[in-house]
Amino acid sequence: MSKTVDLNADMGEGYGAWDIGDDAALLDIVTSANIACGMHAGDWDVMARTMRLAVENDVGIGAHPGFPDLHGFGRRRMQLPLPSLQNLVRYQVGAALAMARAAGGAVRHLKLHGALANMTSEDVEMARACYEAALSVAPNIIVMVLAGTAQQRAATDLGCAMACEIFADRAYNDDATLVDRSLPGAVIHDPDVAGPRMAEMIREGAIITASGKRIETRIDTICLHGDTPTAVKIAGQVRRALEDSGVTLERFKGAPG
Amino acid sequence: MSKTVDLNADMGEGYGAWDIGDDAALLDIVTSANIACGMHAGDWDVMARTMRLAVENDVGIGAHPGFPDLHGFGRRRMQLPLPSLQNLVRYQVGAALAMARAAGGAVRHLKLHGALANMTSEDVEMARACYEAALSVAPNIIVMVLAGTAQQRAATDLGCAMACEIFADRAYNDDATLVDRSLPGAVIHDPDVAGPRMAEMIREGAIITASGKRIETRIDTICLHGDTPTAVKIAGQVRRALEDSGVTLERFKGAPG
Amino acid sequence: MSKTVDLNADMGEGYGAWDIGDDAALLDIVTSANIACGMHAGDWDVMARTMRLAVENDVGIGAHPGFPDLHGFGRRRMQLPLPSLQNLVRYQVGAALAMARAAGGAVRHLKLHGALANMTSEDVEMARACYEAALSVAPNIIVMVLAGTAQQRAATDLGCAMACEIFADRAYNDDATLVDRSLPGAVIHDPDVAGPRMAEMIREGAIITASGKRIETRIDTICLHGDTPTAVKIAGQVRRALEDSGVTLERFKGAPG
Amino acid sequence: MSKTVDLNADMGEGYGAWDIGDDAALLDIVTSANIACGMHAGDWDVMARTMRLAVENDVGIGAHPGFPDLHGFGRRRMQLPLPSLQNLVRYQVGAALAMARAAGGAVRHLKLHGALANMTSEDVEMARACYEAALSVAPNIIVMVLAGTAQQRAATDLGCAMACEIFADRAYNDDATLVDRSLPGAVIHDPDVAGPRMAEMIREGAIITASGKRIETRIDTICLHGDTPTAVKIAGQVRRALEDSGVTLERFKGAPG
Repeated sequence: MSKTVDLNADMGEGYGAWDIGDDAALLDIVTSANIACGMHAGDWDVMARTMRLAVENDVGIGAHPGFPDLHGFGRRRMQLPLPSLQNLVRYQVGAALAMARAAGGAVRHLKLHGALANMTSEDVEMARACYEAALSVAPNIIVMVLAGTAQQRAATDLGCAMACEIFADRAYNDDATLVDRSLPGAVIHDPDVAGPRMAEMIREGAIITASGKRIETRIDTICLHGDTPTAVKIAGQVRRALEDSGVTLERFKGAPG
Repeated sequence: MSKTVDLNADMGEGYGAWDIGDDAALLDIVTSANIACGMHAGDWDVMARTMRLAVENDVGIGAHPGFPDLHGFGRRRMQLPLPSLQNLVRYQVGAALAMARAAGGAVRHLKLHGALANMTSEDVEMARACYEAALSVAPNIIVMVLAGTAQQRAATDLGCAMACEIFADRAYNDDATLVDRSLPGAVIHDPDVAGPRMAEMIREGAIITASGKRIETRIDTICLHGDTPTAVKIAGQVRRALEDSGVTLERFKGAPG
Repeated sequence: MSKTVDLNADMGEGYGAWDIGDDAALLDIVTSANIACGMHAGDWDVMARTMRLAVENDVGIGAHPGFPDLHGFGRRRMQLPLPSLQNLVRYQVGAALAMARAAGGAVRHLKLHGALANMTSEDVEMARACYEAALSVAPNIIVMVLAGTAQQRAATDLGCAMACEIFADRAYNDDATLVDRSLPGAVIHDPDVAGPRMAEMIREGAIITASGKRIETRIDTICLHGDTPTAVKIAGQVRRALEDSGVTLERFKGAPG
Repeated sequence: MSKTVDLNADMGEGYGAWDIGDDAALLDIVTSANIACGMHAGDWDVMARTMRLAVENDVGIGAHPGFPDLHGFGRRRMQLPLPSLQNLVRYQVGAALAMARAAGGAVRHLKLHGALANMTSEDVEMARACYEAALSVAPNIIVMVLAGTAQQRAATDLGCAMACEIFADRAYNDDATLVDRSLPGAVIHDPDVAGPRMAEMIREGAIITASGKRIETRIDTICLHGDTPTAVKIAGQVRRALEDSGVTLERFKGAPG
């Protein structure tokens, strides 16, 4: 039986004179791009450039909002009242909608960034608030969720279009959470391991944990990283391993949960 | 013969814990609100709050983009390449479109802020670039222009919906530019002068300069200020003076130039 | 027996075009000013202006560093590694030292702001890290601490110059923490209550809690607020109540704990 | 006759998660480092790290203040009243003084950055205002000036310690200004040209212009760039070419003009 999966990566994470990652190389590998919206990274010019590249490469455009914290790259947890958080998400999604339109494309999906992603994967109410905010200004947006977390529950509750995501380079605990980065084996650097592992999870429709346990879950997309030259190389190798094992790479459809 | 005019004012110019102006009072006076978009002032929460108030008061919502310079409040001139300037305008207009939608309203017009307004009133190409950018993401937006300046020429060239603006509290030179603030009489603080003067300009369809010269011009809207308690008081008195002289106050229609 | 106490207030909390509080009025009331250092509020011009005013009014200058979060006014908790927190404190204290010198004065004390104050009042290691950082660039600085908290313990451990602070307008729990703002009676708005209450605490050398309990503590300074016209009025009335009850108002001496 | 010269480069130009340039490699090449102070680039952590590296490599530390414009990397001209500009310089120099002290070093020199450097090389009053501001908080600081420009005149007028700088990789016009970057030959990419050319200028004590004209000038330091891998390579080759031609590389002494 043939299987399909989407590959996604964060992009457009420069700011002014600064840059991170090799977006051009990543756009040859992924089928969906999560593009920063100016609060934790990205600015109007970076967004315009990245979205134009995504359109040219026929890669799906995602709004990738984060906390308003350039210095911390959106990786620091921030306690905001839910209505304020919703305003923050709407602002960024709105900006992304306009930038995508001007680039000849359209925002197809939403993916939360950094600490905002971490917090919403633990807090279903917070996830729901963010997704409702995005849907209030872009009713057809597909919500990308961390498979098996509060994010998935929130999107399922809302009945909105959804894409479930797993990580190519991170080991999983038996409760579907990620193994802490400080522990040995938490990050999978070897593409000869990461590629076949992803192919296996997709074939089985399950997260395979570090202990070997299977957690059945819907898998629509795999998150790749491209913030270092090595990461880009691994991303390409994961893609090839998936293709070699007969998995078809294409954008997620976004069926509701 | 009955005359109508719109009254507009800048609003939503707080940021985080800081505030400027009495928006609630101004919304009782004006028919259009120019709402800051987060680059020179305003944030997602201030925008949400101000737009909701505008909707409740049936006041027209305008996107009011400025240079990305919170510290300078968008009043410092900044040299940006035109494509970058266009990205900057699109980003802010896009954010405003989303915030207005979430507030149950819609962005009706565009007004450029501060140094960006000053520069585009002198430079028709720069004005045109900004207006094209706004129209590329909001095709029906009405462009508010400083009457008699390069802004008006740019909007006329584009054939887009337009509203021509004069100032209630500023004296004019014989070439339709504003008398420099450092000169005596440049700013009109007396509402007993400002009100009848506006009524006269509207009746005559002309800017009346400090020397008494008439410069025929289309007048669709009058800019009021509300950044001090005195300014709000004057704004109210100008409104009453206009009503007393038989001028009807309502939103501009936005006919092309 | 004659008693003396210092009165302090936060100041210089504007930023660019925005302002908060009536610093000029407060400078007539207090003996020490805590001046924002540009990260949560304050900029180079606001600092220069406020420090000059402090020098003219013979009010002690304090550096008042906070988290790097203009939008949140330094009121949002931020998790930073201690070495990074120390760099942040050093940067702000260094800027303050220079600005004070240029204003013809000198930085006399340090007071942490907002969420940084809250977190360090609960965490002695974090408090110690901040104080060590300040002392590493200003060895004679007097550390102002929230009386009875981890801040006081940290300064006592370090053996540095210290000033213990209580609040004029907040009720205390029996463990010397502040009554939560959401509870009735947490904030004392009535100067006829606040003034005599402060005088009593100073006479007794103890925090008097909401339940009437006495917690013996060193009291060197009282924190007043001036962010609203009412707050300034109350601050003045507290000062008069203290004077009327025979308390002498003068800058703290900064004896070690 | 033996000649000596200093080599300087801009450093510490990262911000949060972003980085530019290979500071570690540059510190093996230069004798003085111009370290960004947090307004156009650099943050408290980047400053701390870069200054510690400079101390370890026995490289002279310079404060490198710029306009408050992270997005524009301080390369956009900004019109500020002179007193405000002075506050801006003092703030940054003060922060640098503290960070250097904590790193076990000291700020030895001042070099203005980007648009602030360009503007002050054309405007002697503006240059003087900046240098006076720096001297008001660091009386022994050595002012690094662009040789032959208004910066040099300002420092000479002030009689302060000074170091005159030329560029390794830029061609000069006959009036000692730089050939515009858009013209052919403006930037010298070939280290086999740049190295001997620098050696010749130092031997002759003159700027040699593109037309071959000699403009006698004091030369204390040569500016190298390190923002790309190529730039770092060129910087190293210029250093070797100078050593090969008998020039001694050491920190400038800072004699007044």
